[in-house]
Amino acid sequence: MVHAEASTFTRGLSKREVYTQLLEQTSALFDNRRNWVCNLANTASILYHALHSLPAPSNAVNWAGFYIVYPTDPQTLVLGPFMGHVACQTIALGRGVCGAAAKKAKTQLVADVDAFPGHIACDGASKSEIVVPIVKDGHVRRALPNQQI
Amino acid sequence: MVHAEASTFTRGLSKREVYTQLLEQTSALFDNRRNWVCNLANTASILYHALHSLPAPSNAVNWAGFYIVYPTDPQTLVLGPFMGHVACQTIALGRGVCGAAAKKAKTQLVADVDAFPGHIACDGASKSEIVVPIVKDGHVRRALPNQQI
Repeated sequence: MVHAEASTFTRGLSKREVYTQLLEQTSALFDNRRNWVCNLANTASILYHALHSLPAPSNAVNWAGFYIVYPTDPQTLVLGPFMGHVACQTIALGRGVCGAAAKKAKTQLVADVDAFPGHIACDGASKSEIVVPIVKDGHVRRALPNQQI
Repeated sequence: MVHAEASTFTRGLSKREVYTQLLEQTSALFDNRRNWVCNLANTASILYHALHSLPAPSNAVNWAGFYIVYPTDPQTLVLGPFMGHVACQTIALGRGVCGAAAKKAKTQLVADVDAFPGHIACDGASKSEIVVPIVKDGHVRRALPNQQI
């Protein structure tokens, strides 16, 4: 049975050790499970708690979650499961850091979001951001942003 | 535009004031928005942060989120968007506190979960729980559990 311990990470582990545990835990959670809402919700939780177990600046992450590209409207990213304060419901493809990652199908690592053209300031506390596009069969299906104070 | 401030609650407000703000914020977020994953993810965030703005014991809530009843399998609750540590992916209708709320279509308020028959201990840190069924047209569509340390 799934247990909350799956998202509990021992303090003092290296980044590599934490990421290894993160991948093992998510793989185990996905095993024979195909409900994407359920899987992404648990993944957001594991990722958020993994980052918070690491030393600064990783432990200052204030948002971790997913934006979804639905086949019915590939020009819009829609908010999916996440951890953190409320976030913009939709983002136009190409707009802001998240939209750029989805449009270019390329990870965006932005140290200072205020210097990023067209940045969408959902949360003024977020100063840097990484967005990783999830690509399958050549199409972006999800985008996984992390925002940091 | 939606802003993270929507889930920021001033300390020192009464429970009634916080709940009023919570309802206003979620109503505003849902206005003209019909993506249920997006809406429930933001609602879980607002609820979690609202409770954490209140005095003890409300601020000790360690999980707030939703289980979903999909029409394709009404005998199973599936994990939806939430805030907190990872949780059980599925719960059989009638099992545990969440399953009981969904089966009976009645709110379950359990002070000591260990004394509840068939309690599913997803997280040993959770000692009490409230689950509110969301009923539409006589059918339970969602269940909204909160767990507390």
